[in-house]
Amino acid sequence: MAKSISPGLTLIPIPGLPMIQQGDDLARLFVDNLKAAGASIHDGDIIVVAQKIISKAEGRAVDLADIEPSARARAVAEETDKDPRLVEVILSESKRVVRTRPGILIVEHRLGFIHANAGVDHSNVIGNSHKEIVLLLPEDPDRSAQDLRLRLEEMTGAKIGVLINDSMGRAWRMGTTGQMIGASGLKVLDDLKGNKDLFGRELETTEVGVGDELAAAASIVMGQTDEAIPAVIVRGVSRFVGYGDTTKKLLRPPEQDLFRS
Amino acid sequence: MAKSISPGLTLIPIPGLPMIQQGDDLARLFVDNLKAAGASIHDGDIIVVAQKIISKAEGRAVDLADIEPSARARAVAEETDKDPRLVEVILSESKRVVRTRPGILIVEHRLGFIHANAGVDHSNVIGNSHKEIVLLLPEDPDRSAQDLRLRLEEMTGAKIGVLINDSMGRAWRMGTTGQMIGASGLKVLDDLKGNKDLFGRELETTEVGVGDELAAAASIVMGQTDEAIPAVIVRGVSRFVGYGDTTKKLLRPPEQDLFRS
Repeated sequence: MAKSISPGLTLIPIPGLPMIQQGDDLARLFVDNLKAAGASIHDGDIIVVAQKIISKAEGRAVDLADIEPSARARAVAEETDKDPRLVEVILSESKRVVRTRPGILIVEHRLGFIHANAGVDHSNVIGNSHKEIVLLLPEDPDRSAQDLRLRLEEMTGAKIGVLINDSMGRAWRMGTTGQMIGASGLKVLDDLKGNKDLFGRELETTEVGVGDELAAAASIVMGQTDEAIPAVIVRGVSRFVGYGDTTKKLLRPPEQDLFRS
Repeated sequence: MAKSISPGLTLIPIPGLPMIQQGDDLARLFVDNLKAAGASIHDGDIIVVAQKIISKAEGRAVDLADIEPSARARAVAEETDKDPRLVEVILSESKRVVRTRPGILIVEHRLGFIHANAGVDHSNVIGNSHKEIVLLLPEDPDRSAQDLRLRLEEMTGAKIGVLINDSMGRAWRMGTTGQMIGASGLKVLDDLKGNKDLFGRELETTEVGVGDELAAAASIVMGQTDEAIPAVIVRGVSRFVGYGDTTKKLLRPPEQDLFRS
């Protein structure tokens, strides 16, 4: 008789979410939309949410028409062929400029991410009549994830993790990938040191960036353009749920960064 | 009446694979083990395979006892606190040394990856009686993926993609993530330029490294230690199947690399 294979991992889009507005109750929308589809959040689920809807709900939109660029922003805008007002916003979100080229502005975000344009984005932000609105990253994405997790846990009774992802570039590889910018209730860096391999030999220095792997997996489902799936349930990896890691765990400390200069 | 939600993505481990030996027929093992579990490969599936079992099947093991380190390998071994014979093997797989620190040797692999130890690995390689065996990356992982894809397609009649992943570090983030080192039958870099966002505005410069996102997703299921799941079916993203991208698409060309020096 055939045995059945259980999937190792299932990623389930939260369906039918509307355009998110400042002040929207994301937890309520998630629970109601799942319920309407005959689904629910389970114990051990990890809810991955796109940065963009967190930022929208938190009112992190900035109208470029209100921005007066500094002399420095104008100089960087010149180097990068960008709108000086956009550069002003990017610099205000950054600790330092890492690299500039025409069309490229890579900074260290105030939260520690090495991120093109400090994650400031103007796609999917608002209709054509308001072309000058851009969206910043959440003020404190780990706190945003915690708020959402606590509220979802209260509403559902399930013990879960929440992870916020964003699309980021990489130094040596083409294309962006989903990476973690905030988390709550999760293990995001899995330290296998001391674990044994298949031959019983101890692994030496293996740490796995599971937070980023989860962010990438959800990103495949979310898509980037008009698919409008900004939240995904990752089911089947409850082993990472029930921890208290923050995003700092995934950021290489400056003293260990060999590619900082 | 409740509608049902279809999962966006399902990852299914290929169960019960034995320790792979040189010359093993991976396609045959995958198909037989799935069949024994009442499962099969479907049209549009992407089969993600761990580099390690490809390398083992291809006989890419090297016995350090056979290696005579060069003067250069001895010098780099001194800088990095590594076995000079291991360093000799790493350098023989590399175009150049990118960074050294005690315990750390980052190179540009002959295939173009910026990879610690050139991906040379000695975990899960062989029992304690042969501690000096290390495993190199496949000679040509895109070709390995193609061979496996063609054989699986012949055996199953399904049109699929095959992707080979490995765990790699990142410049600014802690922990390794699954990243793609070989592929066949796939789109691995998804160029959204010209696509429209939710407001009908054209996206500017979004390219998504879907090959690496798929590699990361499968890596979550594979685990790293004694879980022994070296092959995973990714089901639900047939939109990336039926293309001819190679790994080169995911490697940033030197002239675009801002962090090369």
